[in-house]
Amino acid sequence: MSATLTDEVLASFARTPDARLRAVLERVVVHLHELVREVEPTVAEWEAAIGFLTAIGAACDETRQEFILLSDVLGVSSLVEALNGAPVESGGTESTVLGPFHVTASPPRELGDSIDDLGGGRRALVTGRVVDPAGNAVPGAEIDVWQCTEDGFYDVQQPERQPAGNGRGLFRADADGRFRFRTVVPGHYPIPTDGPVGALLAATRRHPYRPAHVHLLVGAPGFATLTTHLFVRGSPYLDADAVFAVKEGLVVDFAEVDVDTAGDGAPWSPTVDDGLDRPYRHADVEVVLVPAGLASAP
Amino acid sequence: MSATLTDEVLASFARTPDARLRAVLERVVVHLHELVREVEPTVAEWEAAIGFLTAIGAACDETRQEFILLSDVLGVSSLVEALNGAPVESGGTESTVLGPFHVTASPPRELGDSIDDLGGGRRALVTGRVVDPAGNAVPGAEIDVWQCTEDGFYDVQQPERQPAGNGRGLFRADADGRFRFRTVVPGHYPIPTDGPVGALLAATRRHPYRPAHVHLLVGAPGFATLTTHLFVRGSPYLDADAVFAVKEGLVVDFAEVDVDTAGDGAPWSPTVDDGLDRPYRHADVEVVLVPAGLASAP
Ligand SMILES: [Fe+2]
Ligand SMILES: [Fe+2]
Repeated sequence: MSATLTDEVLASFARTPDARLRAVLERVVVHLHELVREVEPTVAEWEAAIGFLTAIGAACDETRQEFILLSDVLGVSSLVEALNGAPVESGGTESTVLGPFHVTASPPRELGDSIDDLGGGRRALVTGRVVDPAGNAVPGAEIDVWQCTEDGFYDVQQPERQPAGNGRGLFRADADGRFRFRTVVPGHYPIPTDGPVGALLAATRRHPYRPAHVHLLVGAPGFATLTTHLFVRGSPYLDADAVFAVKEGLVVDFAEVDVDTAGDGAPWSPTVDDGLDRPYRHADVEVVLVPAGLASAP
Repeated sequence: MSATLTDEVLASFARTPDARLRAVLERVVVHLHELVREVEPTVAEWEAAIGFLTAIGAACDETRQEFILLSDVLGVSSLVEALNGAPVESGGTESTVLGPFHVTASPPRELGDSIDDLGGGRRALVTGRVVDPAGNAVPGAEIDVWQCTEDGFYDVQQPERQPAGNGRGLFRADADGRFRFRTVVPGHYPIPTDGPVGALLAATRRHPYRPAHVHLLVGAPGFATLTTHLFVRGSPYLDADAVFAVKEGLVVDFAEVDVDTAGDGAPWSPTVDDGLDRPYRHADVEVVLVPAGLASAP
C-alpha cells in the first residue's frame, strides 16, 4: 500500500511542463517518503514537525529569515554553496553561505568611507583587489559588504540602537580593481536564538556561535557572482561555526597597524594620510572572480 | 569536502539528550544532503525553495494550515496515517488524513442534532455505531465530525457566510455505541488554491479536488483514536483525490430515503418520527476501534 502511495504521488507530477521542476519534485517526494518510512513518525511527531515549520514561518518577516537560518544550521546552505562555488582548480576565491542577514540593500558608499556609525575598540581598514584567475584587475567590480558590530549585532537586529545600513556598504572597485573601506573588527556572535531554530539548537545542546566575519558579495559583468566571508583570524569558533561555513582560505589577518609599523608605501597603505588614527587593524584581501559559466560544479 | 560537511553536521547533533530527536534529525540531515547532492540546486533554486517555504509560512494563520496542505498534496500525511493506522489484520476501521480544516474545536451537540445551519438540496442523516473488533459496543465514544457545505466550503473559509461551527459537531455515543446526526451531503471541493500550495498544483498541472467526504475523529478510553473519513459513493474524484486519502473501505452509500423505502423499524431507522422531511439521504456506518497499543505499525 505504501509503495503504491509513493508511486501514485510521483505519477501525479507526470504532467509538469517544466522538466527541471518535475525532476526536483520527484526527488523531494522520494526522499520525504523514505524519511517517513525510516523514522515512522507518530501522528504527534508529525504534528510537532508541522508545528515546527509553522513556527519557523511565523518567525520570518522583512528583516528576519528563519528558514535560511534553519538551512544554515542543518548545513544545507553550506552544501549548496559548495556545489555552486568556483571549483578549486578554477583558482577562484572560495564561496560560502549568504546567511540570513542580507535582508536589506546596502547603502552605496565611496571607496574609503566607513561603514560603521557606532565605533568600537578595534577600528579597522579593509583593503582589497578584485582580479581574475590570471591576476588581471576586474575594474569597476561591485562589492557588497555587511557585518555585525564589535559586540555582535547586525543593524536589523537593533533598529533602536543602530541606524539602518550600519555595517553595510555597496562599493565599486576602481580602474585597478581596488577597493577599501573603514569599519570596526566584527565580533563573533550567536545566531538569533529567540526563535524555533534557537529552540532546536538548545534541544540538541548545540552552541549558536559564529566566528567573526565580514560578508562579501562580489560581482562584475562576465564573472560569476561570488558570495563569501572574510573570517577574522584568531576569532573564537573558527573551528566550530554554528552554520558550517568556515574555509581555511577565507581566514584573514586583521593585523594591528601603529606608528612604528607604517611605511611600506604601497597603494592604500596605512602610511597614506587617510585620516585614520593609530593604532588600527588592517586586513588586505585578494578576491578572485572566475568567468561566468565556469563557477558551477558539473 | 561535501561528505565531510555532512559528517560534521551529523556530529553536531551527537550531544542531543533525546535519543529519538537525535535519530530523527540524523535521518533528516542525511536525506536533505542527499537530495541537495542529487539535484544540485543553483543558488537561485535554493532561494526559490526558501521563498516557497516562507510563503507557505506566511499563508498560515489560526484557521489556515498551509504546511498541512503541503504535507497532504505530497502524500506525506497519507503515508504517516498509513504507518500509524490500525493494521488490516486488527479489523479496525481504516484511518486516513486529518486534513487542514481541523483548526477549530467542534461544538458539542446532542445525538440527532443537525450540524448544518445553511441547508442544501440533499439533506442527510448519518447514523453509526462504534464497536470493538469483536463487535461489542464502545459506549460513550466521542465522535468529532467536520465537513464542508454542499458547495464545498468549510466554515472557516467563509466566516462572513457560515456561522462558526457550521458543519462541525462533537457527539457522544450512547450506551450501545450508537450515534446519529443530521447534515447535508457534502460536496467535492478544491483544496485552497489561492496560496503557495495552489501555485504548486498549477505549476505541475495537478487538479486541486477532493472527493466528497465527512471527517471523523473517534476516540474512547482504552482505544486508539481513529482519524478517518466517510467518502460519499459516486462522488467525482474518488479515484484522483488531490491528497491521496481515499481507501475503498471508507466509501459509503448516502442512499435516498423517501416515503416508500421507510419501514424497516431498525433503531434510528428513517421510519422513526425524527422530524426529517422526505426525501433525504441516509448513510449508516460501523466504526471499529482497536485497543490502544495495537494500532501502530511495527
Ligand atoms: Fe554574518
Ligand atoms: Fe475535508
